[in-house]
Amino acid sequence: MAKYALSPLAPEAFPKLPVIKGARFATHAAGVRYKGREDVMMVALDAGTTIAGTFTRSATRSAPVLDCQAKLGSAPEGEAVILVNAGNSNAFTGKAGVASVQAITGAVAEIMEVSPNRVFTSSTGVIGEPLPHGRIIDALDALKGKLDENGIENAANAIMTTDTFPKGSVASFEINGKTVNIAGIAKGSGMIAPDMATMLVYIFTDAQIAQDDLQALVSSFTDTTFNCITVDSDTSTSDTLLMAATGASGVEVSHDTKAFREGLHSVMLDLAHQVVKDGEGAHKFVTINVTGAKTNAEAKVHAMSIANSPLVKTAIAGEDPNWGRVVMAIGKSGAAADRDLLSIRFGDILVAEKGWVSPNYREEQGAAIMKNAEITISVDLGLAHGEATVWTCDLTHTYIEINADYRS
Amino acid sequence: MAKYALSPLAPEAFPKLPVIKGARFATHAAGVRYKGREDVMMVALDAGTTIAGTFTRSATRSAPVLDCQAKLGSAPEGEAVILVNAGNSNAFTGKAGVASVQAITGAVAEIMEVSPNRVFTSSTGVIGEPLPHGRIIDALDALKGKLDENGIENAANAIMTTDTFPKGSVASFEINGKTVNIAGIAKGSGMIAPDMATMLVYIFTDAQIAQDDLQALVSSFTDTTFNCITVDSDTSTSDTLLMAATGASGVEVSHDTKAFREGLHSVMLDLAHQVVKDGEGAHKFVTINVTGAKTNAEAKVHAMSIANSPLVKTAIAGEDPNWGRVVMAIGKSGAAADRDLLSIRFGDILVAEKGWVSPNYREEQGAAIMKNAEITISVDLGLAHGEATVWTCDLTHTYIEINADYRS
Repeated sequence: MAKYALSPLAPEAFPKLPVIKGARFATHAAGVRYKGREDVMMVALDAGTTIAGTFTRSATRSAPVLDCQAKLGSAPEGEAVILVNAGNSNAFTGKAGVASVQAITGAVAEIMEVSPNRVFTSSTGVIGEPLPHGRIIDALDALKGKLDENGIENAANAIMTTDTFPKGSVASFEINGKTVNIAGIAKGSGMIAPDMATMLVYIFTDAQIAQDDLQALVSSFTDTTFNCITVDSDTSTSDTLLMAATGASGVEVSHDTKAFREGLHSVMLDLAHQVVKDGEGAHKFVTINVTGAKTNAEAKVHAMSIANSPLVKTAIAGEDPNWGRVVMAIGKSGAAADRDLLSIRFGDILVAEKGWVSPNYREEQGAAIMKNAEITISVDLGLAHGEATVWTCDLTHTYIEINADYRS
Repeated sequence: MAKYALSPLAPEAFPKLPVIKGARFATHAAGVRYKGREDVMMVALDAGTTIAGTFTRSATRSAPVLDCQAKLGSAPEGEAVILVNAGNSNAFTGKAGVASVQAITGAVAEIMEVSPNRVFTSSTGVIGEPLPHGRIIDALDALKGKLDENGIENAANAIMTTDTFPKGSVASFEINGKTVNIAGIAKGSGMIAPDMATMLVYIFTDAQIAQDDLQALVSSFTDTTFNCITVDSDTSTSDTLLMAATGASGVEVSHDTKAFREGLHSVMLDLAHQVVKDGEGAHKFVTINVTGAKTNAEAKVHAMSIANSPLVKTAIAGEDPNWGRVVMAIGKSGAAADRDLLSIRFGDILVAEKGWVSPNYREEQGAAIMKNAEITISVDLGLAHGEATVWTCDLTHTYIEINADYRS
């Protein structure tokens, strides 16, 4: 299904995801844009399912994102449906885009016999072209007929655009002797590109949890997972994370339930990492740890400045232990730094300290670290106790190839 | 002298720069890092010359930058000297870097018989390696012996690193029947890279102007010229602009003198554009105009978000009129925008308006514009009257080649 070669950072296989009772999946080849592949997926969720979500903060966000945001937080009355298409993002499509969302959600509500307020849609693909929503509506009967609690892997495939592998993650754990499952899928490889990537994430659990508790958890964990990854510093107009808790396990949890918190965080972090590992042109997966900053927020500013620097990212692509570019990225970030206090490590190797290269550092040590597929760069600013970790990938010729291709 | 192929955006020839009375130039092959080329330049400035400057705001700025900043604004007593080396930036070199600056400025002061407070140095090149300042000091006698009022073009060549052409600009105009000249040189091609680029700019005039007036003009014009260009969003630890007014024309000017203001602004803008045109891997020179923003500052945030977006820059490299990526960059910038009010033009072609593609726009029109070597992208936000213009280049395979090369 993928147009580009499989990412060298791809996992060996799609994980075996558990059935989430109360959630059924269907996929269909609606021909929105792609030929010969499934490009629409539907999730039907049992009555009582609570739904939370987080979305792009872009000022130019898409019509489906605005529609989802307006519906979140309404009472979990009756069944709910998530409907997603690949191939067209319905973003920057003006009033026609709003009309497309209304047409689709109205048709879903009618065919699935749910309230329009319980229909959530996402679209990913080319920006600025009218969404041929008729093709999606024409597929609804077929989708309804195919709904299956085992369909989540197909759903992960149907939402791909420039992704080179489908992304899934699972956490299963016991609470009071009963098993609770969390299963998530995601797509995304550049932060955005017309005809290309947007990040979409759907997570399902059979735990029973109040909507406001679920929203609080999802918002909090988004800040330290999906909001801490960057492929190219560009932010989609369509990024969407939706989480549905069906309650079918009969296990009640809250935002304080440790096992649920840990399981959900682990699924979100795993999916976030998979998005980076499928970053357009990525050959290296890079963890940036910043400690010793004035605040956690300032640590993240530094970490993102390093993670988004084209010079740092091309150095990583070239397997060059170029710590001078890390110094540069810290200097330009705008957050506080004292040149003579900061230290830099590549992996476990102390590269620079006290404003200069470490006296024991030898270039071969750094060069050896840079040959790895997964690299950790750690910066300690020596100022206070603020810290942050972000994840990124290298910037390679393949990124240019993917994104400098003419669209048509 | 250039390691890389001449930029396709290079001017046909180095401009003929006028003699600036009171300023003499010398260059020498000191062997700081490069072999077989001149890599040090000296400017000797007559007594009474006023000097102004602007510098990188990086928190990790280099020792010579900090030294220059400390000296600016002191009284113009006696002669002054500017000394610049290429090959080593003396950045992130700890206490040894400070000692190198002191050794060089002390030696220059002694040999040239000037106050150390009137010696300004810059260094550009690899980060984090000790500056072999002895080689520079050894060259001072030779430099002193070569000083020549016609040496400015050689100086422009001696300060190049990854530059593919030397950069010069001139403005000559009459004030009260007397000719005033401004001549400037610059180097820079990436915002920074070890062993590579830093932006250095030196401008000379025979006008007579008070230091605070000169500083006010230089600071103000820097904001709308050099601070409005971006090659790769990365900011050097060494960026330096120094301006020297010898007064030798006998023409007194102030920050209000229209001809002087216009001439200086034109030289600064021309040099800034030349830096972009020599941007690492640049094949296209791109002007981004943003109007209708809430404030000028917000207009610049939007313009820089567009200019720095890897997806916008790769689209330009691919000659793809991909206005969806422009929408994305506006959306992510953090400054105010209303999707349904903004309009986008490529050249004179109205591409998008009122939140969607313009009804009369045809893709061929945009595609034709994108084939040009110089492209203007204009965005009107439709909110208020804030405006800004910035300049950038495309992001090509050559940028990756230059920057993913292993250093050694």
